[in-house]
Amino acid sequence: MSHGSNASLQPLFYPSSIALAGVTVGNPEHWTRTFLDGLLEFQFEGPLYLVNPRGGEIGGIKVYRRFTDIPQDVDYVISTVPAKAAPGLIEECTHKGVKAVHFCTAGFSETGEQEGARLEAQLADLSRKTGIRVLGPNCMGIYCPESRMSFNADFPKEGGTVGFISQSGGNAGDLINRVMSRGIRFSKVISYGNACDLNESDFLEYLAADPQTEIIGLYVEGIKDGRRFRQTLRRAAKKKDIILLKGGTTEGGARAAAGHTGALAGSEVIWDSLCKHAGIMHVHSLEELADSLVTLRFMPTPRGRRVALIGAGGGSSVLITDEFERRGLRVPPLPRELRDLIGEFTPLAGNILRNPIDYSQNWKEPEKLLRTVRIISQWEEIDFIIWFLDLAWAELSEMDLIHEIVNGILTQSRAASKPIAIVVRTHISPEQAKKVYSFIQQCVSFELPIYYSFASAANAINLVLSHHERRLGKPLSEA
Amino acid sequence: MSHGSNASLQPLFYPSSIALAGVTVGNPEHWTRTFLDGLLEFQFEGPLYLVNPRGGEIGGIKVYRRFTDIPQDVDYVISTVPAKAAPGLIEECTHKGVKAVHFCTAGFSETGEQEGARLEAQLADLSRKTGIRVLGPNCMGIYCPESRMSFNADFPKEGGTVGFISQSGGNAGDLINRVMSRGIRFSKVISYGNACDLNESDFLEYLAADPQTEIIGLYVEGIKDGRRFRQTLRRAAKKKDIILLKGGTTEGGARAAAGHTGALAGSEVIWDSLCKHAGIMHVHSLEELADSLVTLRFMPTPRGRRVALIGAGGGSSVLITDEFERRGLRVPPLPRELRDLIGEFTPLAGNILRNPIDYSQNWKEPEKLLRTVRIISQWEEIDFIIWFLDLAWAELSEMDLIHEIVNGILTQSRAASKPIAIVVRTHISPEQAKKVYSFIQQCVSFELPIYYSFASAANAINLVLSHHERRLGKPLSEA
Repeated sequence: MSHGSNASLQPLFYPSSIALAGVTVGNPEHWTRTFLDGLLEFQFEGPLYLVNPRGGEIGGIKVYRRFTDIPQDVDYVISTVPAKAAPGLIEECTHKGVKAVHFCTAGFSETGEQEGARLEAQLADLSRKTGIRVLGPNCMGIYCPESRMSFNADFPKEGGTVGFISQSGGNAGDLINRVMSRGIRFSKVISYGNACDLNESDFLEYLAADPQTEIIGLYVEGIKDGRRFRQTLRRAAKKKDIILLKGGTTEGGARAAAGHTGALAGSEVIWDSLCKHAGIMHVHSLEELADSLVTLRFMPTPRGRRVALIGAGGGSSVLITDEFERRGLRVPPLPRELRDLIGEFTPLAGNILRNPIDYSQNWKEPEKLLRTVRIISQWEEIDFIIWFLDLAWAELSEMDLIHEIVNGILTQSRAASKPIAIVVRTHISPEQAKKVYSFIQQCVSFELPIYYSFASAANAINLVLSHHERRLGKPLSEA
Repeated sequence: MSHGSNASLQPLFYPSSIALAGVTVGNPEHWTRTFLDGLLEFQFEGPLYLVNPRGGEIGGIKVYRRFTDIPQDVDYVISTVPAKAAPGLIEECTHKGVKAVHFCTAGFSETGEQEGARLEAQLADLSRKTGIRVLGPNCMGIYCPESRMSFNADFPKEGGTVGFISQSGGNAGDLINRVMSRGIRFSKVISYGNACDLNESDFLEYLAADPQTEIIGLYVEGIKDGRRFRQTLRRAAKKKDIILLKGGTTEGGARAAAGHTGALAGSEVIWDSLCKHAGIMHVHSLEELADSLVTLRFMPTPRGRRVALIGAGGGSSVLITDEFERRGLRVPPLPRELRDLIGEFTPLAGNILRNPIDYSQNWKEPEKLLRTVRIISQWEEIDFIIWFLDLAWAELSEMDLIHEIVNGILTQSRAASKPIAIVVRTHISPEQAKKVYSFIQQCVSFELPIYYSFASAANAINLVLSHHERRLGKPLSEA
């Protein structure tokens, strides 16, 4: 990785000042206000300049009519000017010491029109000539809680250890929203769009060297320089866990990608092999990406693939065992002696003391449940525990009892050094949603990995275990 | 199918009178009260008798101390007596003209203990000797809204056209809960447990001949008589759409099934081939079963596999195209002339007028959106439409606008005879859940198929199309 490249990216993440070019003055609901709203909500600390030919002011901040009217130098520019005005803006930036410009506006190569492609080539050309780095066009730019930058006022203000490089701004926002309620926080998120100058490899090099970033997610539709990307990926994978989601691996998907970010795509098989060689995880949907991030972030690596499943429901016990074993995880039978031990205080009928352990008929007796969990945690032949529950049958008034159980289970699994993960059923009814939400918040406060289905838990845990095994070059110990 | 077998099942679904043997008198929260609660809530119309050695009364209904104390004959018995008392109950039933007994209680072969297996064999033996049909043991029995029978007071009271035969009572309740908010109603649901007498084939024959049932779902863990089941399945598949979910297809899953209903399981490959030969759909999870039922019930069969995807979000457009094409559906490019037609009133930038059609930047202008949908509906090269949306960015006050859009989209897709399906993102936050729930209820009132993810929509639609193609013996027309 070149130090030069990383240094030139520093103003994007830690700018000393920002100008918003093209921000709408009259209408506070206009989409160009997104960036101002984000910076104000996050209390960006450096000088903030606004530019619009109409002039005036927004919330007490002066709006300059021309970019060159700004009295000081500007470090970083977020532009929402129309595509046609973009090249002119770069020219103006040269007079103000600008290091980088983020062009949010669409209307470039992704339109499939000649004029858009010509404008984009002009931006790339100007960037090379002036040395001003360009982010975009056609993207949402940077979310960096540490430097108080956000392209969405509703994103979490606390930072975290996950970095996400996303060609699509919509998918960036989507992922952040999906995982924030599951406890994931971000170091840096980059939506980089058509990548006419800065591209996926630049950001990957940057995050690989970024001390705040431990896990890197990537959503790409097309690659600008395949050789550089493969090399960058391999180097970065030696330092951090990386998960890649490739959009446009089918014929229609590639066509959609061309229309979205003007990207040229490749087949699923090629990407699968690329990821295997680079030593990174390959996922196929945002859901899988979210589940994998949660697993990497919150689940200590289990010693092996053997799981104890504890929860309510006989029928689902059979189906979830299938879900886990189908994905290469193992659900070993509960040995006779442990079964007898638990049987001493739990009736056999309706409580299938095998594995999965179905405690549907006495989940309201926490002391018995916790005694069971203690015995299971100390069972030598399992490597981790999944606790599953459906709160549909619990009363809102019973949530205290549930919280007590979570506490107890967590304490016991930690004492036994057995990682634990939670599967909770979500419900669409607003009343059920309240209980589930309160439960999830408690789990998240304990930094527990939480999943919304057995299939997604089994799938993500298998992906992560396979990732570790590939790194080790051998299966995780089962003894 | 033998008429005799179906006639002997009639008292289970349409009993002239019911006795609840073993219902608990003192504690209204006791699980044995489930059946009484269900029958009262559903206002079962025939005579209802309660039996418990303690006597007394429940809610004004006399409790007989002994079964034989009941002054009239009894048609059907729901028993919650302990396993040990079950054989004795059958003997008593012979004096009261009882046609069938449902034994809910667990503690039989599923325990893996000799005593449980012996008791179960005794029940089967007594059933043969007395001619009294036995449902169970270890199951929840019958839900039949038409005859006002339910094993859960919260199930919908309206009947429908879906029949479900489930070895597991938990999975039966689970499926009903999963699909009731998506508009599915049931003709009959049967939880049949250990199947010591009546088994999957008996119920399949019954539902195949049942005029109220159009679609049949099956959850089985083990089969009592493989040859009979295969024949029954083939015959039933000629009359109705059948979806099978087999629990216990992995080693661990089979072990769990043995512990759940004492079933002997078979491998996934065997079941896949069995379903193909019988001409029925094979699914691998309750989620897939739910999605397939929704598709069969609410989506008119499209002429082919070509879909127009209309919704918000450029990045997700790429990923959802991948989800659909990966599953053998086709997302054809929007022809130039239609693109130009839509382009007349929609700006190109930020609205990718390809397919998927991304209208993220003007979804709040319903007249433009509906004009777009009209043009798309009349497009000759597509067979059905998916409309997708995420309500996270909508205000609660904008739900009227959304409802107006749903109305318009539905009208236009029907005018063009193009089936339409909806994908809506669910959210765990209770505030978001309110909007999503209200939206879903509207879609359900229009009998629209609704899915919670692109993957599940694409998967279920592909399964149903493949099912139709297998029946036709050729691919659906694409011209």
